[in-house]
Amino acid sequence: MSKLKNDLFLRACKRLPVERTPVWIMRQAGRYLTEYRKVREKADFITMCHTPELAAEVTIQPVNIIGVDAAIIFSDILVIPEAMGMKFDMIESRGPVFHHPLRNEDDEKLLKQIDPGKDLKFVLDAVSLAKKELNGRVPLIGFSGSPWTLFTYMVEGRGSKNFSHVKKMIFNNPQLAHKVLNLLSDAVADYLSAKIEAGANAVQIFDTWGGILSQKDFAEFSLRYISKVISKVKRKNEPVIVFSKGVHFKLDELVAAGADVIGLDWTMDLGEVRKKIGGKVALQGNLDPTVLYANQEKIREEVKKVLSSFGEGSGHIFNLGHGILPDVNPENAKALVEFVKEESKVFHHRDTETQRN
Amino acid sequence: MSKLKNDLFLRACKRLPVERTPVWIMRQAGRYLTEYRKVREKADFITMCHTPELAAEVTIQPVNIIGVDAAIIFSDILVIPEAMGMKFDMIESRGPVFHHPLRNEDDEKLLKQIDPGKDLKFVLDAVSLAKKELNGRVPLIGFSGSPWTLFTYMVEGRGSKNFSHVKKMIFNNPQLAHKVLNLLSDAVADYLSAKIEAGANAVQIFDTWGGILSQKDFAEFSLRYISKVISKVKRKNEPVIVFSKGVHFKLDELVAAGADVIGLDWTMDLGEVRKKIGGKVALQGNLDPTVLYANQEKIREEVKKVLSSFGEGSGHIFNLGHGILPDVNPENAKALVEFVKEESKVFHHRDTETQRN
Repeated sequence: MSKLKNDLFLRACKRLPVERTPVWIMRQAGRYLTEYRKVREKADFITMCHTPELAAEVTIQPVNIIGVDAAIIFSDILVIPEAMGMKFDMIESRGPVFHHPLRNEDDEKLLKQIDPGKDLKFVLDAVSLAKKELNGRVPLIGFSGSPWTLFTYMVEGRGSKNFSHVKKMIFNNPQLAHKVLNLLSDAVADYLSAKIEAGANAVQIFDTWGGILSQKDFAEFSLRYISKVISKVKRKNEPVIVFSKGVHFKLDELVAAGADVIGLDWTMDLGEVRKKIGGKVALQGNLDPTVLYANQEKIREEVKKVLSSFGEGSGHIFNLGHGILPDVNPENAKALVEFVKEESKVFHHRDTETQRN
Repeated sequence: MSKLKNDLFLRACKRLPVERTPVWIMRQAGRYLTEYRKVREKADFITMCHTPELAAEVTIQPVNIIGVDAAIIFSDILVIPEAMGMKFDMIESRGPVFHHPLRNEDDEKLLKQIDPGKDLKFVLDAVSLAKKELNGRVPLIGFSGSPWTLFTYMVEGRGSKNFSHVKKMIFNNPQLAHKVLNLLSDAVADYLSAKIEAGANAVQIFDTWGGILSQKDFAEFSLRYISKVISKVKRKNEPVIVFSKGVHFKLDELVAAGADVIGLDWTMDLGEVRKKIGGKVALQGNLDPTVLYANQEKIREEVKKVLSSFGEGSGHIFNLGHGILPDVNPENAKALVEFVKEESKVFHHRDTETQRN
């Protein structure tokens, strides 16, 4: 299927037989790693995103240190709004703060159409560099925020509890919301296509804020544009993963949108979801990220529960149900990966008996 | 069924015929009301909770101003931990901050068993006062946090994003967690019984943090204790409402726990949930609270969608899917209540044809 030395992740995305369940960790290139913090001392977060050498360096770290079965390019979802002209600062305890949030038609007029090959060349260069340094050891994942999630950040302008600005906009000025979401869908599709072109073996769409919407608003303002993005991404065999945090509904519709893999947060029942849509897509997830605060015996026990919940056969990519937390002991992350590798073999003994396609 | 002039809310809780859908609003006695802010100018939040006259005054306000079909006693869920000996400050922008969070066995030993009739007399006095002032116009609801939700506040000690302290405790020291949760279950049951004794016509258990748990942890650390509380509450005909925010699963088990009404947040499909459990319990909810930021035409439209989603017949109590937000225009809250009253009649024309029990 590919020239990769370890293509377990890609096979699982396609529900092809695997010898064991592949594992990677959302935010695996992050602050919990001493080696990451050392790079971070040399440059602030945004500079790291903008510097291909640094981005590639931290991208590879978890492959070397933690032993994950896939790398994911280090970057931030807000590089798209930034390239469209919306500058932001990353403030340690508060997250991103946009200088000028998007609130009305005049703000929308200031948004530039982007050409990823030019405006986001630093990400594509990081992808090429990371690919080269990975040298086929494991696949490389590219990613983007969903149009709705990018839109939420752009309108709120900073961390929010009630999301009052973006909700006001969709209720009181849905035309403007749809206009910007359309713009963003094109940008996201072009960006993901460029990442694949630069060497990404798969792409993940993070719909971090899909879960703040009612089911009908999710369909109108998020799902619709995820679907548009997937239909426009130029790809050959590269799988698309959709992770809509807090979205416990409309899974069939996410499948219909063309996702190859659906990511699940830790409030979902993996086995139940498999029964519902596991015949059509692979599933990714879904250990509670805070389990990594537990002792290793408990971590192993919880890993086994997640594996059992999915059950036998391929189509499962082990991951946390959300990003790894910055104060997790890296030894526990290492142990997690090891436990998945050890404990998952028994769920695939029949896979290896069947002929691979 | 009662001597109340308006008992629509209680009838709907029992799925008895009603002429229209009753409506109340979570946090209806709150900062969005000018009249509430005037009282609040005279006393800080904790003093308001501790002063029966002030608590009763703001409890009645939404009945007079907004026209809701039920009052809910003004108080805070943290009066229980406070009575157990855990002091806290309410800090405007951050919420409650405990002086000394519960983190280990020594902290647990400091917790006092409470006697609501003595330690929480100020709440019971507020209930009696509010009942008297309501003079039978509408029912009065008493409430408590769920054991799990109280426990989460006590362990975290302040607002949290990742809930790392409470998760560490359930994974690494589940014995201690269960010990405190048992203590809390008794306290909550006694407290709710005392409120009913003082005149509350119904009680609601707020499980605000149930949704941060995986399904199996929810069963072990939240549902189990909600069930215990319900079985121990002394009541005659007073319904118990359970609102587990973010809990989109184990609804059958919540019903089995003995709830008469299940509250739903705005990410749930009211019609689907009715199909599943509507034959056994009433449902409360679930308009997205941010819809109150919209113009009134849109609010009416969204009210109609919620009513249609539930469909014809009794067993629905209209509410928001979470508390009303402090910056909502009170005119919009008034309009919401009016729209429910106007638009819901058509869903009950068959109710009134049948004989009431």
